[in-house]
Amino acid sequence: MYEGVVQDLIDELGRLPGVGPKSAQRIAFHILQAEPTDVRRLAHALMEVKAKVRFCATCGNVAQEELCNICRDPRRDPAVICVVEEPKDVVAIERTREFRGRYHVLGGAISPIDGVGPDDLRIRELLARLADGAVTELILATDPNLEGEATATYLARMIKPMGLKVTRLASGLPVGGDLEYADEVTLGRAFEGRRLLDV
Amino acid sequence: MYEGVVQDLIDELGRLPGVGPKSAQRIAFHILQAEPTDVRRLAHALMEVKAKVRFCATCGNVAQEELCNICRDPRRDPAVICVVEEPKDVVAIERTREFRGRYHVLGGAISPIDGVGPDDLRIRELLARLADGAVTELILATDPNLEGEATATYLARMIKPMGLKVTRLASGLPVGGDLEYADEVTLGRAFEGRRLLDV
Repeated sequence: MYEGVVQDLIDELGRLPGVGPKSAQRIAFHILQAEPTDVRRLAHALMEVKAKVRFCATCGNVAQEELCNICRDPRRDPAVICVVEEPKDVVAIERTREFRGRYHVLGGAISPIDGVGPDDLRIRELLARLADGAVTELILATDPNLEGEATATYLARMIKPMGLKVTRLASGLPVGGDLEYADEVTLGRAFEGRRLLDV
Repeated sequence: MYEGVVQDLIDELGRLPGVGPKSAQRIAFHILQAEPTDVRRLAHALMEVKAKVRFCATCGNVAQEELCNICRDPRRDPAVICVVEEPKDVVAIERTREFRGRYHVLGGAISPIDGVGPDDLRIRELLARLADGAVTELILATDPNLEGEATATYLARMIKPMGLKVTRLASGLPVGGDLEYADEVTLGRAFEGRRLLDV
């Protein structure tokens, strides 16, 4: 439709999540008219992320060194681990300033429909962190939807026999929603009101 | 909030039109998990557009050579010029396959509020194309809004004395739409422009 490289850019942009054909076209024309230095900065930021960002060897959060900022921070309580699905959930929880422990990022949730089973998540790595007995509480902060609940139940059944306090974020989170979209107050309340899981 | 380069990417993405903070974050995490070759292709497409795309010396449409595909095509009728505001309007009209003439892209519309006057548009270039008398019809296809109408009126007043046929795309009800959802102005135009049915 468009001349070669413009259509290439529209195609590439259209592959991004939430960017439909109309948005891709609008962004491409914005790029066409933008300052070359601005476009270079965007292209550079894309490449930098791929070149420099890796995942924390301990918790699986995004990191620029072997360990992420939180795992490297000696002020964070190593006795409490908050288990989340994705790195963006870490950011959402950090924003509340309610939690001073460490995290564990699973990399998703159990979802038979999407072919994601327990072995596809960072559960082995979580168990390894619990092996030395230093962790006393595990907060299950997976999304309050079907997959997140299933994952929390799976983890609770596996980990409670180890004698840890296993809690789940409970009150305040709208059922069926995504954790990352919760506002800070709601998410903060959910931390305060976390409850013991009976499984 | 995020580690350096991730936040940099979110910031850069957030500057794109129609990309809010939540979308920027979602795209950034998509990039984090995407294949490096896919990200490289996107970054490359961005740089290629800035390096290779210019504007057609004749019509102002996007082009990869001195002239765009349409101005270079000998099968396009040089006697009819369709005047549009932006290159994306060319694409929209091409999609209809109704028009076999050439285009002229103004680069916007007259808008005193935005400080855009006739001198900021490619009107001088349009007049130059009309100078040799080869063009017999000018179709004004600027947007059917305040600025587009003002621009069409301005051009029509300037060009009609030159003896050309100057036309404007019909306003009326969108095909496939519901009459009850049409706004009053559109419905009024549809009445004004009503035509005899030959059945």
